[in-house]
Amino acid sequence: MDIKVVRQILEWNEDCSNEIKESLNRNKVCLINVMGSPGAGKTSLIIELIKKLKDKYNIAVVEGDIAGQIDAEKIDSLGISVVQLNTEGACHIEALSIRNILGYFDLEEIDIIFIENIGNLVCPAEFELGEDLKVAILSIPEGDDKTIKYPLLFSKADAVVLNKYDMMDYFEFGDEKVEKHLKTINSEAKIFRVSSKTGEGLNLLLNFIEDKVKTKLK
Amino acid sequence: MDIKVVRQILEWNEDCSNEIKESLNRNKVCLINVMGSPGAGKTSLIIELIKKLKDKYNIAVVEGDIAGQIDAEKIDSLGISVVQLNTEGACHIEALSIRNILGYFDLEEIDIIFIENIGNLVCPAEFELGEDLKVAILSIPEGDDKTIKYPLLFSKADAVVLNKYDMMDYFEFGDEKVEKHLKTINSEAKIFRVSSKTGEGLNLLLNFIEDKVKTKLK
Ligand SMILES: Nc1nc2c(ncn2[C@@H]2O[C@H](COP(=O)(O)OP(=O)(O)OP(=O)(O)O)[C@@H](O)[C@H]2O)c(=O)[nH]1
Ligand SMILES: Nc1nc2c(ncn2[C@@H]2O[C@H](COP(=O)(O)OP(=O)(O)OP(=O)(O)O)[C@@H](O)[C@H]2O)c(=O)[nH]1
Ligand SMILES: [Mg+2]
Ligand SMILES: [Mg+2]
Ligand SMILES: [Zn+2]
Ligand SMILES: [Zn+2]
Repeated sequence: MDIKVVRQILEWNEDCSNEIKESLNRNKVCLINVMGSPGAGKTSLIIELIKKLKDKYNIAVVEGDIAGQIDAEKIDSLGISVVQLNTEGACHIEALSIRNILGYFDLEEIDIIFIENIGNLVCPAEFELGEDLKVAILSIPEGDDKTIKYPLLFSKADAVVLNKYDMMDYFEFGDEKVEKHLKTINSEAKIFRVSSKTGEGLNLLLNFIEDKVKTKLK
Repeated sequence: MDIKVVRQILEWNEDCSNEIKESLNRNKVCLINVMGSPGAGKTSLIIELIKKLKDKYNIAVVEGDIAGQIDAEKIDSLGISVVQLNTEGACHIEALSIRNILGYFDLEEIDIIFIENIGNLVCPAEFELGEDLKVAILSIPEGDDKTIKYPLLFSKADAVVLNKYDMMDYFEFGDEKVEKHLKTINSEAKIFRVSSKTGEGLNLLLNFIEDKVKTKLK
């Protein structure tokens, strides 16, 4: 007799994530997963990066949201292909959704895909999406103890962006405290002080991302 | 033969939530569940409320966090009984945890228990904890589209607190836009403009909470 095996959600997620990786490697596409709290500045940062990158690269975006398409409309107005993924209540994006969405894009033409994950410091970090880069945003008004209280995402990030850095004078935020703690949970992560409003600090992050993109497209 | 029935997590949660309600009604304790994004100001608000309420009422706190006990230490330093609940990765608090924690408190002596839920706009709203009041915090730096993108919590809240209201001059936040949208998803919720830093607007929220507490203690 055949016994039906229902696999653990995370194991199944890993398979999908591996399929995504193969497909992106074959097509030379760099996938960047942007995560952070609600309102940390995921959309604002992606928009600023797109403005600087779009003359050199073909870019597409997957916008994850529980509901609505506010952020997808903002991306669309830049003339960039975007798919709105509504999770209808789910607190994170799974690889299966990304694998299905890749079918909407012409991967041979695309160089970079940004994923804006659901605003959540907890669950998105558990789901590998086959990405080349994990960018974790922590915004100054959230406070400097977030890497301690919500460690998983920050421990897996390739880049940690301290966004809304233009607000440093208005909050008691110890950016060196964050840097020091981050080193204890993630010795590899690069930290960037950025304002998506004024553009401050954006170039360093841009260089970091372009290095990764160039390696992938080679 | 006996068939073991494993019930849905939400159904089991409802049973626990009902047990909590009975126990709190019997002991005349008012339970307040405070929810919001990471860093929205849950701890800051709870601390300001405690300062104003602690001479009149016996108060206890349950601090929910993925990891660490930073917030519990802050509450403890006010001389308030506090239990730190570490969810070890889970993105929300379930009623079972609260039911078990109630055993640590002398419910006959206590008037008010605050729960600080995990910083998350998504999942905590799905889990009833037997509470008398759901307080949802939205902080100004998060942006004025959060009730649209993360509707569930705001649709269930009794009070929506626009916290960090002292930051209104620094962000383009349409508070009337939020109020208008909130009415379409929750006609009952009261909205409060508060700064947990300057104390602005705290008294109106305090009156609202005290009304509820007094009814419960009668
Ligand atoms: N001062 C300042 N405000 C910023 C910055 N980046 C974003 N904001 C503001 O922060 C709010 C949220 O920005 P979004 O880019 O929508 O944040 P998000 O993470 O995409 O939010 P969700 O998708 O709703 O979870 C908006 O009011 C932005 O204008 C920044 O660097 N500085
Ligand atoms: N300007 C201003 N800052 C505030 C206000 N309330 C809280 N903060 C700041 O916001 C940051 C986060 O505040 P917390 O009270 O720790 O927020 P929280 O929601 O408990 O955060 P987590 O428990 O880590 O999810 C801290 O730096 C606070 O000082 C406010 O009303 N105005
Ligand atoms: Mg966004
Ligand atoms: Mg807190
Ligand atoms: Zn979750
Ligand atoms: Zn969740």
